[in-house]
Amino acid sequence: MSGIAKLPQPPYYAAIFTSQRTNVDKGYGRMAEKMEELASQQKGFLGIESARDHELGITISYWDSLEAIKSWKDNSAHKVAQEKGKSEWYKNFSVRISKVEKAYIFEVNEDNN
Amino acid sequence: MSGIAKLPQPPYYAAIFTSQRTNVDKGYGRMAEKMEELASQQKGFLGIESARDHELGITISYWDSLEAIKSWKDNSAHKVAQEKGKSEWYKNFSVRISKVEKAYIFEVNEDNN
Repeated sequence: MSGIAKLPQPPYYAAIFTSQRTNVDKGYGRMAEKMEELASQQKGFLGIESARDHELGITISYWDSLEAIKSWKDNSAHKVAQEKGKSEWYKNFSVRISKVEKAYIFEVNEDNN
Repeated sequence: MSGIAKLPQPPYYAAIFTSQRTNVDKGYGRMAEKMEELASQQKGFLGIESARDHELGITISYWDSLEAIKSWKDNSAHKVAQEKGKSEWYKNFSVRISKVEKAYIFEVNEDNN
């Protein structure tokens, strides 16, 4: 999955995960892919957007309820990944839970690539 | 500015800007920097986080109120940048306005870089 998420009309919820990586790899890429795939199979999942550069990574997952976010947080395979994240992969990170109230989508420049 | 934003306790607001770029440069980098600097001088601005890779860019600006977000949206220099964005720089983009209700910050692995 990549690009701008196709989502229903608000309201819905966004889990904003911002992180700075360590230099440790140890299976990070595979785990990140696996977690994205697993998240997308959860009840209440709506979509995901992700970008990473040398300074920061931002992943935003979108959900239909706070309960869905909590269930994903408590998912057992996800918990294993969270622990590895704390011990190996991330220098620091933040998780912000927010309610999306408005959304505007623009699709422009179809002929301007 | 870079890294994870240092913010007050929630609630506060997040403007989530997700974009896919065209191949057109025409001053994009300079304008992006200038807009970040200008945003940070606005009333109600709390912080900003940004990451871009070859597929997607995500910039999240944080504000103390919806009014502050509206004022920034209507800022005249920002409006000029928005128009250039639509006509030149972005294939497509989304803006999602959300209210952050919870936040967890983790700082780990100080010795593990």
